[in-house]
Amino acid sequence: MKSNRIPVHAFRADDSFVGRVQKLVREEVIPYQYEILNDNLPDVEKSHAIENIRMAAKKLQGEDVSPDAFYGMVFQDSDVAKWIEAAAYTLAAVKDPELEKTLDEVIALYGASQHEDGYVNSYFTVKAPDRTWKNLREAHELYCAGHMMEAAVAYYEATGKRNLLDIMEKNADCIYEQFMHHNTRGYGGHPEVELALMRMWRATGKEKYKELAKHFVDVRGLAPNFLAEEEAGRDWNIWNHTVELDTDYTQSTLPVREQKDAVGHAVRGVYLYTGMADVAKETDDAELLAACRNLWDSITKRRMYVTGGIGSTVLGEAHTVDYDLPNDTVYAETCASIGLMFFAKQLLENEHRGEYADVMERAFYNTVLAGMQLDGKRFFYVNPLEVIPGVSGVAPTHRHDLPVRPQWYACACCPPNVSRIVSALGAYAYSENESTFFIDLYAGGTVETQKGLTLTCETAFPHFGEVKYTVSGAAETTLAIRIPDWSENTMLTVNGEAVDLSACVDGYAYIIRQWQDGDTLALSLDMTARVIYASPKIAADTGKACVQRGPLAYCAEEIDNGKILPLMIREDAVPKALDFEPDTLCGIVPVVIDGWEVQETKTLYSTEKPKLVEKEIRLIPYYTWANRGENQMRVWMPVK
Amino acid sequence: MKSNRIPVHAFRADDSFVGRVQKLVREEVIPYQYEILNDNLPDVEKSHAIENIRMAAKKLQGEDVSPDAFYGMVFQDSDVAKWIEAAAYTLAAVKDPELEKTLDEVIALYGASQHEDGYVNSYFTVKAPDRTWKNLREAHELYCAGHMMEAAVAYYEATGKRNLLDIMEKNADCIYEQFMHHNTRGYGGHPEVELALMRMWRATGKEKYKELAKHFVDVRGLAPNFLAEEEAGRDWNIWNHTVELDTDYTQSTLPVREQKDAVGHAVRGVYLYTGMADVAKETDDAELLAACRNLWDSITKRRMYVTGGIGSTVLGEAHTVDYDLPNDTVYAETCASIGLMFFAKQLLENEHRGEYADVMERAFYNTVLAGMQLDGKRFFYVNPLEVIPGVSGVAPTHRHDLPVRPQWYACACCPPNVSRIVSALGAYAYSENESTFFIDLYAGGTVETQKGLTLTCETAFPHFGEVKYTVSGAAETTLAIRIPDWSENTMLTVNGEAVDLSACVDGYAYIIRQWQDGDTLALSLDMTARVIYASPKIAADTGKACVQRGPLAYCAEEIDNGKILPLMIREDAVPKALDFEPDTLCGIVPVVIDGWEVQETKTLYSTEKPKLVEKEIRLIPYYTWANRGENQMRVWMPVK
Repeated sequence: MKSNRIPVHAFRADDSFVGRVQKLVREEVIPYQYEILNDNLPDVEKSHAIENIRMAAKKLQGEDVSPDAFYGMVFQDSDVAKWIEAAAYTLAAVKDPELEKTLDEVIALYGASQHEDGYVNSYFTVKAPDRTWKNLREAHELYCAGHMMEAAVAYYEATGKRNLLDIMEKNADCIYEQFMHHNTRGYGGHPEVELALMRMWRATGKEKYKELAKHFVDVRGLAPNFLAEEEAGRDWNIWNHTVELDTDYTQSTLPVREQKDAVGHAVRGVYLYTGMADVAKETDDAELLAACRNLWDSITKRRMYVTGGIGSTVLGEAHTVDYDLPNDTVYAETCASIGLMFFAKQLLENEHRGEYADVMERAFYNTVLAGMQLDGKRFFYVNPLEVIPGVSGVAPTHRHDLPVRPQWYACACCPPNVSRIVSALGAYAYSENESTFFIDLYAGGTVETQKGLTLTCETAFPHFGEVKYTVSGAAETTLAIRIPDWSENTMLTVNGEAVDLSACVDGYAYIIRQWQDGDTLALSLDMTARVIYASPKIAADTGKACVQRGPLAYCAEEIDNGKILPLMIREDAVPKALDFEPDTLCGIVPVVIDGWEVQETKTLYSTEKPKLVEKEIRLIPYYTWANRGENQMRVWMPVK
Repeated sequence: MKSNRIPVHAFRADDSFVGRVQKLVREEVIPYQYEILNDNLPDVEKSHAIENIRMAAKKLQGEDVSPDAFYGMVFQDSDVAKWIEAAAYTLAAVKDPELEKTLDEVIALYGASQHEDGYVNSYFTVKAPDRTWKNLREAHELYCAGHMMEAAVAYYEATGKRNLLDIMEKNADCIYEQFMHHNTRGYGGHPEVELALMRMWRATGKEKYKELAKHFVDVRGLAPNFLAEEEAGRDWNIWNHTVELDTDYTQSTLPVREQKDAVGHAVRGVYLYTGMADVAKETDDAELLAACRNLWDSITKRRMYVTGGIGSTVLGEAHTVDYDLPNDTVYAETCASIGLMFFAKQLLENEHRGEYADVMERAFYNTVLAGMQLDGKRFFYVNPLEVIPGVSGVAPTHRHDLPVRPQWYACACCPPNVSRIVSALGAYAYSENESTFFIDLYAGGTVETQKGLTLTCETAFPHFGEVKYTVSGAAETTLAIRIPDWSENTMLTVNGEAVDLSACVDGYAYIIRQWQDGDTLALSLDMTARVIYASPKIAADTGKACVQRGPLAYCAEEIDNGKILPLMIREDAVPKALDFEPDTLCGIVPVVIDGWEVQETKTLYSTEKPKLVEKEIRLIPYYTWANRGENQMRVWMPVK
């Protein structure tokens, strides 16, 4: 059964968990990131992203601009796009005329950097105007365009303003002309425009955008490889040195319908699969949907961390092979888990199966939130499940696995990506169609359905399992609420009467009734902290376990326990949730579990059986790690 | 108390373990490698090493030789050198006029490629005659020269022939002139010539070679960095692309006396330290010896695998940081463990401490022997402690960790290095000085001492612990025999009477007496198989154990056990050695240990406690792994 996500503005968070993070993004992160994009923070990695656009605009107005005026990555524009998109979502929640004014200024600047024919990209305008559309493999032109299209749709939906949407329609028309009539075998080395064009189609109703999205999906990976052919006819590249074409990295090894395994650059993969799933849904392409399901299984059943992280190697920021999930040299890019949420949501829109939402939730509450410091000022790009200061960030194999979050990155894709997924969370939490309103994630606040109901959700999720929805308005309709896979004993009541959960379909309880003002739908989830074991096929986790409570993976940090490496979980231990600690890490429910501490040995290797001392191990939610300085951290610990 | 190693020819192996491996090298490996060096084996990686020398000789004789006639690495000559050296050692054991004739021919060819001034190197002669001594960082000229010096000394000692020694004296004189008078701040990017010049000094008595060796040791790492200065004045490099100078890699970050940690390329490190230890010994340089001891501790107490492997990352084939010892992405190059034996032996020559010999033995019987297939036809460059087919050799992070030995390598340093250490093992097994004859390793066969005693050693070591020496001749002298650290209950008798081992000094029992014809010295070592635990500082080994018996680390292979990843060792298990199996893997004592097998789970992560089935795990010596096809292997296994 197909469905659509709700518009972002249909959900208003209250001041519980999701609302608090959204507020943090709105009040701290968005202004902070705007300062960074304008290079106003002296101690932070230089961005220059706004200035690049200004230079492009000046050049178009006839000013003399040096090619060297451009600074940063070839995809620097996309940082601005993601920031606009995130800011637009925050406007959907809280009006902010000053922010809106700032956005309009940035949009006007961006518009001034647009060429007559609709082309817009500061890198090529300033630095290489004769090289447009000639290096689809590396140049990220379609990627940047895609992000700005998403921003345009977001701003239009949030404010009704067409300023950015008009710019991006003109740009999309330019791209349509280029790729449907001239460069008909071409597609971007970094997928993104596919999913963005589908959003443009929804916002504008222009069928050509859907047609172009489908075209990009269809031509990708056809033999002979377009990116290789393009390369052969070019004597320059973006990075000043030749990098051999890796077709997995560029998601171009096979036509998408033939792909079985998630390979290559993890972010590029999930962005592509999201576009595929959307095209599959909107063109009723069962073959394409089947390919999406295969890729989903490849990721979530064989190549995903317990934290919802994906992409286990820094080499190409990529998937490797099945069950190769090292905890210490892991990549698990924040953006990849955000993209996994995109993919999950898009699959949910095709068919409501709880496993999609379960993974979406796993990614959000663990890797995605871990990507941002609790004060919104620092960000992880890479999300390790084990950190040993002195090794992590230092040993050549661990140099990317940092023990503390940096402020910003030269390649700053992740921080603004966190902002936009957090700000848009309502759209991920709910879906609807003619017959049914779906509750996919639990988030405190109010949501309006197409049928005229307003649901007010009260919950302290993810720390507590009570989720209560109170209905305003009246309508005969179906409410479908997800019963997560991790909740072993779940209770659902309507107006206090238990619902028979044995009738759940694919992880959702469907309640068809004439809903009345004041009706309540109350979900009680099983928040028992549980020990989790990995498949013995995962070499890195053999003999180990971790703890999960609700959707939250837990970890042990040195600041709570002393050194973590000598700690082992007791085989028969039952983890115990402590009382909520409002002042710890912005409010958490710590978990303790009985364990052992191995005494330090005198020699590197020894026949002496390790001396064990009983030790209660204190665990915290993974998303809160590295907020108290550099220290040892582990998710998976040996069991003894 | 200083000592010298015995000459290689003073030891004659019998047909027990060491003799069998030496025979394999003599009868199979040396002829096989000669065919490879001559490109006579069509399915093996091309070497061209002899042909390169032929081309150089032809060019010196005035023939027109294209620079493209050279093929292979810039250090291709060193493969020939190591082969000559190994072949020379085999001649010390068994006369072989045909091999000697072949050697004389190769040596004559090499001599014909020597320039008037003594310079000899096929790469530069054929390919880049105007670039000699201008790229010490990359060009390996001193490295190749060093290896050929070692070969020259070996051939001279084995046969009394001066042909190669004369060539290399002329070459060493050329190097002396160049580096003592012109290029006085220069030293090689890959250490080797230092230890080789010390051997040349011993063989020829020419003090200038010792002086030059000390000079190379002293100038290395002085500020400003010579290799960086050299680079700044050069517009070319060897590898056709610029690689930024890594001073750790080239062992040039600090003057050697200031080095505390073993860093950078592991082989370069141990080759350097060996030269340092020799110079320290022969110049009574206590400060230099202290630096060697620090580096020894850095390696063996914090950066060494239980197999005696060193260098934990493929990135730069290098050490990383303390306790970073991953079992699956490990490098542990065969050559590095061979170099560790060099270093250990050179330290023993400075001071007889059992720990040096213990590590030398650990490296030899595990990583070094694992470097060669049991039939002598295939070789490992990299020696992992965990192999999972499908991941090992496939995942980008594991591409260097192969599940089976290849035949040869483009960079073929390891195979001939195994040949030469095996063939020269007598010199590593024994040392002597005016007062004492030292038994450092146990090897069946006869050895002659300077004092006129002949010791005949009968043993089935390393599979059995009885080692009996019978004396021929008579002399009043001290015999010192090492009591290894792994033997918890050791018995030593002289003519059947127990020796009090509480009087051992630094791991050696010293027996001073008037030795008579027929005297026996009998050592009974504790061959109980034992469970070994690693320091909890080694993240990769937490919660795990391995099994060792005598000097042999054991591992579990899939062919004996089914899949290895689901296996765990029982916490209370006592490993049990089975009877010797003469037909298994050329003769081994398998060990079994009680364990568990985890049943496969349905999902990647699960709250279900793993179902365990009792399982006896069969273990084989690590050096015999990967001789029965591609399969899962582990040294360290979880304990439950």
